[in-house]
Amino acid sequence: MTNTSRTLLVLGGARSGKSRHAQRLAEAGGGARLFFATAQAYDDEMRERIARHQADRNASWTTVEAPIDLPAAMRAEDAGGRVLLVDCLTLWLSNLLLADADLEAAGDDLIAAVEQAQARIILVSNEVGFGIVPDNALARRFRDAAGRLNQRLAAACDAVDLVVAGLPLRLKGGQL
Amino acid sequence: MTNTSRTLLVLGGARSGKSRHAQRLAEAGGGARLFFATAQAYDDEMRERIARHQADRNASWTTVEAPIDLPAAMRAEDAGGRVLLVDCLTLWLSNLLLADADLEAAGDDLIAAVEQAQARIILVSNEVGFGIVPDNALARRFRDAAGRLNQRLAAACDAVDLVVAGLPLRLKGGQL
Amino acid sequence: MTNTSRTLLVLGGARSGKSRHAQRLAEAGGGARLFFATAQAYDDEMRERIARHQADRNASWTTVEAPIDLPAAMRAEDAGGRVLLVDCLTLWLSNLLLADADLEAAGDDLIAAVEQAQARIILVSNEVGFGIVPDNALARRFRDAAGRLNQRLAAACDAVDLVVAGLPLRLKGGQL
Repeated sequence: MTNTSRTLLVLGGARSGKSRHAQRLAEAGGGARLFFATAQAYDDEMRERIARHQADRNASWTTVEAPIDLPAAMRAEDAGGRVLLVDCLTLWLSNLLLADADLEAAGDDLIAAVEQAQARIILVSNEVGFGIVPDNALARRFRDAAGRLNQRLAAACDAVDLVVAGLPLRLKGGQL
Repeated sequence: MTNTSRTLLVLGGARSGKSRHAQRLAEAGGGARLFFATAQAYDDEMRERIARHQADRNASWTTVEAPIDLPAAMRAEDAGGRVLLVDCLTLWLSNLLLADADLEAAGDDLIAAVEQAQARIILVSNEVGFGIVPDNALARRFRDAAGRLNQRLAAACDAVDLVVAGLPLRLKGGQL
Repeated sequence: MTNTSRTLLVLGGARSGKSRHAQRLAEAGGGARLFFATAQAYDDEMRERIARHQADRNASWTTVEAPIDLPAAMRAEDAGGRVLLVDCLTLWLSNLLLADADLEAAGDDLIAAVEQAQARIILVSNEVGFGIVPDNALARRFRDAAGRLNQRLAAACDAVDLVVAGLPLRLKGGQL
């Protein structure tokens, strides 16, 4: 992230290396590091995945659990000289959908938190729209909401990376 | 679209902003604008989606419904100084598949219409091959046909953009 | 592939033209050409797909069937001045998964074979992580394993191309 890229959206598929890319960029700079975790450990598969991600982060990180009230949690910790890493927005959106929350209002709130932030912000999100149309209506609704949120955040952020097989492709903003 | 890019294929996932990108490029130029709609409003979800897309287009557009006979509809309106925007080829292909049409022949016909056009042509299509192999045979057949059509059109068009989260990535042709 | 790119990973979706791109690069150079086929013809759909791919290759190719023991098969044919084309790693991984093999150990073995090779190596693999989360656990495990293997190989190879609609996008390494 260059000096002029204060906010970065990292997009990628499942197991694309997007989390590792985001962490590497966050750790390249100085300052306090806060990790906003949106995953909820509701089964063994997810618990294992969370543990694997935690093991990838070094001790310099403070973890904030924010499965639903992410924008408020970000505002509460927002300060200059910090880096706030959110991983990932796809799970946050999924949590909101299952909680029957207002997705548009939540998106507005998140974008406001990003635009007003004093800290550096790195957001990790899945790109989920490159497959065939899902069979069930909830999956289609989720896919639509995820795509719309990614578009809005890509427009709001200074820089956007797409990660494929661990390799970042800069879609917006200057060179790293 | 540069002066030398008379035909453009816009690829993207679901909710990637590909339609908006295509419209923006079409509206950047002068001349009459024709929108070739391939969607069929067979249920409420689709009716809502069509209405949302129509609301995005300004009054300068003339809409032509062409769910099946797209190449013929394009030829009937083809003239220099016009821009023909087709949105989207994925639904057209899906309509053909459900109508048990000859997909190869239809693809040949579309490519001929594009190559012989006097108008500027912008084609919107979904990239659907980046997920795991679908369970059912019809979905696999559709995915194969969509990938093959995209390849053929990408070869035939002057320029190709891949849209991710609203951000275009030029895969072929000169800079915008 | 430039002189300095001795090992290349070609990523792409289904029907993206990745096989054809890989073959074209392999045939651009001189030397003996070995095609490592990982597909198993267990039904008509697959038999047809294999036949179509074979028809795309000219007579200069020698085919080696390697659905499971790919690294050993590559080592047995490895020699300077040759090009070894593997198509594709996704089917190989799928074969390993169905055979209940140790995926990590197999990945280590493949990477060692690539890194120690005297021949030029071109590996074709599917990017499968850009859809929504699959319903069944086996598909999720496969998707995770495929993503992890692609990341490891992308790190190990000199160059990586992503193919979309037949158009290669260089993600790593110098220009072609």
